Amino acid sequence: MDRRELLKGSAAAVASILSPVGAEAAVKSVATAGKVERWGVFELELNGPSHGNPFVDVTLTAHFTQEHRTVAVKGFYDGDGLYRVRFMPDAEGVWSYTTASSAAELNGKTGHFACAPASEGNRGPVTTANRFHFIYADGSPYSPFGTTTYSYLFATDTNAAVSLEGMRGYFNKSRVCVLPKPLGNNGPELLPFPRSGEGKDATNDYTHFNPAYFRLVEKRILELQGAGIEADCILFHPYDAWGYKAMPNGADDFYLRYVVARFAAYRNVWWSIANEYDLVKTKSMPDWDRYFRIVQAEDPYGHLRSIHHSQVIYDHSRPWCTHASLQSWDFEKSAARREAWNKPIVYDEIQYEGDVDRRWGNLAAEEMVRRFWLATVRGSYASHGEVFRAEETGPHAHEPSWSDAGRLRGDSAAKIRFLHEVIAKYARTGLNEFENSYYLSAGKEGELYLWYFDYHRPSRYDFPLPNTAIFEAVLLDPWERKETKLQGSFTGKSRVDLPGKPYQAILFRKTAEVKGKPTGQVAGPEVMD
Amino acid sequence: MDRRELLKGSAAAVASILSPVGAEAAVKSVATAGKVERWGVFELELNGPSHGNPFVDVTLTAHFTQEHRTVAVKGFYDGDGLYRVRFMPDAEGVWSYTTASSAAELNGKTGHFACAPASEGNRGPVTTANRFHFIYADGSPYSPFGTTTYSYLFATDTNAAVSLEGMRGYFNKSRVCVLPKPLGNNGPELLPFPRSGEGKDATNDYTHFNPAYFRLVEKRILELQGAGIEADCILFHPYDAWGYKAMPNGADDFYLRYVVARFAAYRNVWWSIANEYDLVKTKSMPDWDRYFRIVQAEDPYGHLRSIHHSQVIYDHSRPWCTHASLQSWDFEKSAARREAWNKPIVYDEIQYEGDVDRRWGNLAAEEMVRRFWLATVRGSYASHGEVFRAEETGPHAHEPSWSDAGRLRGDSAAKIRFLHEVIAKYARTGLNEFENSYYLSAGKEGELYLWYFDYHRPSRYDFPLPNTAIFEAVLLDPWERKETKLQGSFTGKSRVDLPGKPYQAILFRKTAEVKGKPTGQVAGPEVMD
Repeated sequence: MDRRELLKGSAAAVASILSPVGAEAAVKSVATAGKVERWGVFELELNGPSHGNPFVDVTLTAHFTQEHRTVAVKGFYDGDGLYRVRFMPDAEGVWSYTTASSAAELNGKTGHFACAPASEGNRGPVTTANRFHFIYADGSPYSPFGTTTYSYLFATDTNAAVSLEGMRGYFNKSRVCVLPKPLGNNGPELLPFPRSGEGKDATNDYTHFNPAYFRLVEKRILELQGAGIEADCILFHPYDAWGYKAMPNGADDFYLRYVVARFAAYRNVWWSIANEYDLVKTKSMPDWDRYFRIVQAEDPYGHLRSIHHSQVIYDHSRPWCTHASLQSWDFEKSAARREAWNKPIVYDEIQYEGDVDRRWGNLAAEEMVRRFWLATVRGSYASHGEVFRAEETGPHAHEPSWSDAGRLRGDSAAKIRFLHEVIAKYARTGLNEFENSYYLSAGKEGELYLWYFDYHRPSRYDFPLPNTAIFEAVLLDPWERKETKLQGSFTGKSRVDLPGKPYQAILFRKTAEVKGKPTGQVAGPEVMD
Repeated sequence: MDRRELLKGSAAAVASILSPVGAEAAVKSVATAGKVERWGVFELELNGPSHGNPFVDVTLTAHFTQEHRTVAVKGFYDGDGLYRVRFMPDAEGVWSYTTASSAAELNGKTGHFACAPASEGNRGPVTTANRFHFIYADGSPYSPFGTTTYSYLFATDTNAAVSLEGMRGYFNKSRVCVLPKPLGNNGPELLPFPRSGEGKDATNDYTHFNPAYFRLVEKRILELQGAGIEADCILFHPYDAWGYKAMPNGADDFYLRYVVARFAAYRNVWWSIANEYDLVKTKSMPDWDRYFRIVQAEDPYGHLRSIHHSQVIYDHSRPWCTHASLQSWDFEKSAARREAWNKPIVYDEIQYEGDVDRRWGNLAAEEMVRRFWLATVRGSYASHGEVFRAEETGPHAHEPSWSDAGRLRGDSAAKIRFLHEVIAKYARTGLNEFENSYYLSAGKEGELYLWYFDYHRPSRYDFPLPNTAIFEAVLLDPWERKETKLQGSFTGKSRVDLPGKPYQAILFRKTAEVKGKPTGQVAGPEVMD
């Protein structure tokens, strides 16, 4: 059977290819439904020992090989004597594998499978690119326009469906907690560790996991993936009712290894080591550093890694940290931060739209939208959040808030999508801040200029475009979501009449080079049209 | 003639009282029209030598005495052989005086006059009070709600009338330049120093003054006074077309002494040593300090003194500086500034409402109003400014902008007046910031609480009122200029439903003490009404 045929293979074909080969008879099933595609998941399910404590006692690794490359991937115990190894192939063609295990039943299993091209909408994992930006593995542009649904991964099916419906089409990343948060009547129904006793006397068994909890989380991660949403997986957080924020060091590390082994093959996973790490008073900075290094070492794919603070900003220059994930809205410091860290900056909490009594949770939609634009023209990214008071009566009574995986109730999401559309249309490789711009602006020198006027409303402005190219101009109204293409074309210092209201933007995009020598500053539409 | 009769005396009566007494025959007239009142002006006009250079050659001082007090007041030469001494009496009753001069004709003149009670609307000069606030000399409250009309003092009558009409009722202070600014077709018509030659070869004679220029300025100061507006007189500034920002040191000092001698008797004068002093590159910090000390030494009344910066904040802790006059809108630094300076803080430029292309000149009215509220709840004060592009056709073509003494065109002034009315009604002795308040608030502990929510919009909030008093509450809508008194009364932690829109405020005012021992936190209207 040649490689071409393998590439065409359906799931059934792949299974039949695998079944007759040597030790492959031991493979119970290939859990991946349908064909294995590039940046999809090949899952090896194996029967193994269930005595003792398999979570601790049994080691399992598979080596996946294609031509000159071999990738070592750790497996994990999923309960009931079942072991799994999940692998995300990043190249098409045939991959073969061999297992190594401390358990004889799991050791030396071999096989191969064909990796088909990525299907529509599968652009691979996101990684950093162009110093301060992001990109999908297939080279297509990715600009994070994220939100925050902390409890999504362990929400009830009903709440998760509502939450996902709210995210769909509006956001392409969400911050989600892997460990549960207390949710009152809304869950969680499952816990990650076996727990015994009641109330104050309850104890957690940190030597075992509850596979059902992690299967739920995985289901949710795949739901996000299906909606085109990166799962910014928060590994630790301070919102704890069970003691998980004060696990012993060994338990922390054990948990991290298990999580990475289970989730890393999902292409839409990002690792956020913690939310508000500095509020987890039981941990010290060396602990956080260690978590980073464990995640980095265990993850065969190098998914994005960051950590989110409350008051004390982590040193994002550390080599294991791929980008900054800040809680602040002091966007004016972005230039200094870029200088210090040389990495993309995501302002992952910029306060929430809402109406609760806490300062962080009651922005008007207008202010939320404004902050997205400010982040953008500072050459950085932002995440949305929302928290309205729970309704006390009616069909939505006592529903969780958006940030805990509830209904989207605010007005900013649609306006944020407008900005996302503008960026996707005009600025596919990311905007860099022009630090000496008189009004805030970002873009790419000589090619693209996006000005955002914030609370300023000049009735006209002489835009200092270069005279080496000819530009088209689009007025942007962030709140009305209106794009107005200006008549004519522009080069050099170009006077444009502006709408005379605050919070407006304008974008200039190069349409042509100026032929021959630059002729000095040529004013706008009158001459160039 | 007893004191009572003197107090009743009309101008004519006062003149007749003065005329028969000794050397008083030499007094040509008492220029003050009508009676001399407390914090009014008694003006002594004397004929003296006109040969040589009287500005330089002749010294003239009058000592005004009432009971145990004697105030030394310098006179000045007003041209045409006329010398004047202006005195602002701060106490009712009879004052006598004696002149001392290097010119025999002006020396040893004596007389007396009666000072009547201040008339309606005359509350005396403003001074600092209660550490961080201001007060009129008669003890009535004064909170600066200022504006900026730089060219008012030397504007044409037409423009000045338009400007004054705009200020009247809206503002109680204006920043005005004593030295001229270039105004294109709009003046100035007069200059303070004799000038000869043309264009680049023109030179100023800094040994003489042009009295007509200063008489115009005085007329304007009195117009402001008549409208209840403090004249925040800017003594130096960088907007110069004649060389005045680079006069020799001796000329600077000569000018300051002349100005103080001429203007100090006007109760509504404040001294602003400079506007954007740090943009006057010809001067060094010791120069600015010296100007302060000259003004302080020459002014018998201790009018308010400050200095206004562009980039480099002056050390307002210096003893000759009575309050801070800042160009910034970083109100969050007010607490640190109060700590450092222990003086009132006026944010005298917080950018301008308008539509010009410069960043400082195109705020929307909403943002200007927001900044006033922010300054207020930071326990400080702010000044308005406005600059719209000049109209090119029509009845208002080529008029100066508001800031150069033109027409008021923006929308913020009326909204600022609303805040002024709130402060005048509820917070007569000034608001101090509650630095640990969860939302921005200011007031007086146990008596008055003003919260401003800025971009926050909690739908309700538990206000942490003390339980030692009972309060009434008023919702304030800064933009709609609406005061809504809430039903009931409040004490202790008090839950109030809020309008759910940003930029709202609420004020609580004590109406009664709680009798007996505090009974703990008692919730709002339900129980107390």
